[in-house]
Amino acid sequence: MIKDVKEIYEKVEEFIDTDKEVKLQGWIRNHRKQKEFGFIDFFDGTYFKSVQVVYDNKIKNFDDIQKYHVGSSISVVGKVIKSPAKGQLFELSASEIVLEGDCPEDYPIQPKRHTREFLREQAYLRPRTNLFQAVFKVRSIAAYAIHKYFQERNYVYVHTPLFTANDGEGAGEMFQVTTMDLKNIPFNKEKQVDFSKDFFGKKVGLTVTGQLEAEAFALAYKKVYTFGPTFRAENSNTKVHASEFWMIEPEIAFCDLDGVMDIEEEMLKYVVSYVLEHCSEEMKFLDQFVEKGLIAKLEKLINSKFTRITHEEVIKILKEADVKWEFTPEYGEDIAKEHEKYITEYFDGPVFIKDWPKDIKAFYMKQNSDGKTVAAVDLEVPGAGELMGGSQREESYDKLVKRMQELNMSDEGLEWYINLRKFGGCTHSGFGMGFERLLIYLTGVDNIRDVIPFPRTPGNCEY
Amino acid sequence: MIKDVKEIYEKVEEFIDTDKEVKLQGWIRNHRKQKEFGFIDFFDGTYFKSVQVVYDNKIKNFDDIQKYHVGSSISVVGKVIKSPAKGQLFELSASEIVLEGDCPEDYPIQPKRHTREFLREQAYLRPRTNLFQAVFKVRSIAAYAIHKYFQERNYVYVHTPLFTANDGEGAGEMFQVTTMDLKNIPFNKEKQVDFSKDFFGKKVGLTVTGQLEAEAFALAYKKVYTFGPTFRAENSNTKVHASEFWMIEPEIAFCDLDGVMDIEEEMLKYVVSYVLEHCSEEMKFLDQFVEKGLIAKLEKLINSKFTRITHEEVIKILKEADVKWEFTPEYGEDIAKEHEKYITEYFDGPVFIKDWPKDIKAFYMKQNSDGKTVAAVDLEVPGAGELMGGSQREESYDKLVKRMQELNMSDEGLEWYINLRKFGGCTHSGFGMGFERLLIYLTGVDNIRDVIPFPRTPGNCEY
Repeated sequence: MIKDVKEIYEKVEEFIDTDKEVKLQGWIRNHRKQKEFGFIDFFDGTYFKSVQVVYDNKIKNFDDIQKYHVGSSISVVGKVIKSPAKGQLFELSASEIVLEGDCPEDYPIQPKRHTREFLREQAYLRPRTNLFQAVFKVRSIAAYAIHKYFQERNYVYVHTPLFTANDGEGAGEMFQVTTMDLKNIPFNKEKQVDFSKDFFGKKVGLTVTGQLEAEAFALAYKKVYTFGPTFRAENSNTKVHASEFWMIEPEIAFCDLDGVMDIEEEMLKYVVSYVLEHCSEEMKFLDQFVEKGLIAKLEKLINSKFTRITHEEVIKILKEADVKWEFTPEYGEDIAKEHEKYITEYFDGPVFIKDWPKDIKAFYMKQNSDGKTVAAVDLEVPGAGELMGGSQREESYDKLVKRMQELNMSDEGLEWYINLRKFGGCTHSGFGMGFERLLIYLTGVDNIRDVIPFPRTPGNCEY
Repeated sequence: MIKDVKEIYEKVEEFIDTDKEVKLQGWIRNHRKQKEFGFIDFFDGTYFKSVQVVYDNKIKNFDDIQKYHVGSSISVVGKVIKSPAKGQLFELSASEIVLEGDCPEDYPIQPKRHTREFLREQAYLRPRTNLFQAVFKVRSIAAYAIHKYFQERNYVYVHTPLFTANDGEGAGEMFQVTTMDLKNIPFNKEKQVDFSKDFFGKKVGLTVTGQLEAEAFALAYKKVYTFGPTFRAENSNTKVHASEFWMIEPEIAFCDLDGVMDIEEEMLKYVVSYVLEHCSEEMKFLDQFVEKGLIAKLEKLINSKFTRITHEEVIKILKEADVKWEFTPEYGEDIAKEHEKYITEYFDGPVFIKDWPKDIKAFYMKQNSDGKTVAAVDLEVPGAGELMGGSQREESYDKLVKRMQELNMSDEGLEWYINLRKFGGCTHSGFGMGFERLLIYLTGVDNIRDVIPFPRTPGNCEY
């Protein structure tokens, strides 16, 4: 009977030292050969830990098996027995080993430490390594935890569009999408590109946020969320920027800024707990080899109460701090990485910073009665920096229109968004979380290129 | 205490005819006014059914309330009482009704039948109608069911990239992505567009499938699936084509064609059952107003055994049928819609058609030993047509390379894909399902524009 390695690990008592034969199918991660024995470090991707397969010279094709290379795919029939080796409960005593697919000796993934830079170039093979097996499994489980959290609370999952003609979102630079022949771009009488000849009959790009469309759905379903790809055409080559990444954008009607902080805190704790529970082997590995103390960091988060404080109070604390800042903290201005770090250390835990100066925040945020700030909130998490950004949305038609005028924003293509305030608008709030930022925090891996299966960055679009 | 309408419906015994006051927040779908009474058809998006809110002239702002328009958002405080009206168990007797957000009389969504064409133009408001409340809730629940099915079976969810430089997938026309100034496209010495000056340093488009990258991950995790957006730049204006849509693409190592059919059948039945269970009110509505017999159709699917038959056998049946075909069925050729329909009626249920002529199928499909066919399978479902397409993938390096040469395909950018056959390759299979095609089947709504929140089609990119 064909079994997954996962099943053997989870129900080992049912197999160990019985007469049951099992058949496994997977790959050779390492192969140690002795004169009369062989040991294969075997994995099949269904479980983080591998299985030691032991064979001896009584097996029929002993000489052939000894030639099987690292990376080859094999089928193994055998019995699960108590292992005499240290550190493992069982091993598989093989009665049959069949080569399914060979692998040459120049296979790039050898049983040794490869640099992450090297493995990035082998993106199609790197999930076969321990590190990336762990990272991309965490990615999958965290994605599911997010869906589970929202679905179990009756949120409606909305697929907001990726093609957009909206220019006014202002969240970042956009990629253009076209089917025009770049060798023969059509021009109109005014010598401008004639987008009426393009696929959509207008200028279209790839979205930088699904929030605006999510708001429309929140005003129909009360609670919604998006979870999909987002794009940025910024030419930044940093550890935290990618051109294509995934975002989660919940949006809730009849919810104010405090309500959205409640949701952010509860959701983050839920997802972290879910990953710790469902990726325990992966997390142990990441804790041991990538970020010492990773699990303790995450468990502390789950048990902490998040602080809520205004931007003004934060600046006061920063100004009073006995620290020589690289960037001087100022009322009315954004805060720097060093400030974020100080504040989370000051409160020894996650901090919601709310009520930001309106001039450094987006046009759609609710204007507070002080005339200076907006009901925006950033969540700062120790070891992660800003993990989520949210706000109450301006629900007043007149205030929203006035703010857009102040910012010299055109309402073209956004009339519908403004109209949401006219047609039964209400208090509503939402937030955005970059999925990869969460993964960096969860895995301890510090480069966004290593938490995306096939990352896209300026100058890089392989596979 | 603030409650969702969903909670009232699900725990009505806890509220009905008690002293408990509840507070609801939502929108006026309809408002009937009498001299001393008023009846508000109230919904909040958390449950498909609305609540009848009753108020009388003892309420303090009676005259104001009578002026509240359809579409306005309100808060209502009141008690749940047995309803004297037919067809509803309870109603809400209001002690307080507060206007949260007004709505003018020219609000496009009035309590009458609007055409779907009209509502399509009001895409940001249409989820407030019964029809689209139902459709987009089914969309959300079906999406979750798909994740649940695969996650509970230990599949790894992979986010395959949307930007791709692969040209050779051949599944459809691609959108180009660029950050170059279209007014000043750079050319090289050969007078070709100089893509080295573009964002990624090469020509890049939007993917038409995540399958190839999913294969790489299947050979590391055994079982994986993708669920993400896909694009087609085809200029087709039909009821079933959109430029941006979502696809599910599972990929399984050590799985042959029969194995993949098992998975397709089990998954489809799971998702259909899940939607019937978790969207019962929505499905009743769709059954009544969109497709008579919808629920019976779906229940029949769940209880049917799917037929498995070769393409050759299908052609034989079609040729022997006493039918005057518009398109004559031929061995070696594709089958037409009329043939699909006949075959599912012939077997009175879903039919897997397998072993297709290789010349009408993709390069990566496993070549059968007859030299003529490939191990491909299409699932034909009564009332849906082709719902999924899958295949065993060619695992032989030599056969794959030879097939690509026969088809004059360049291996540029696909070397890694071919290499998967060299580095521990194995029998593996997968399939693709267009999510919107499933939704058309599940909801009975026959136009893809009506199952996508903000659809994109040639000439259409609103919102």
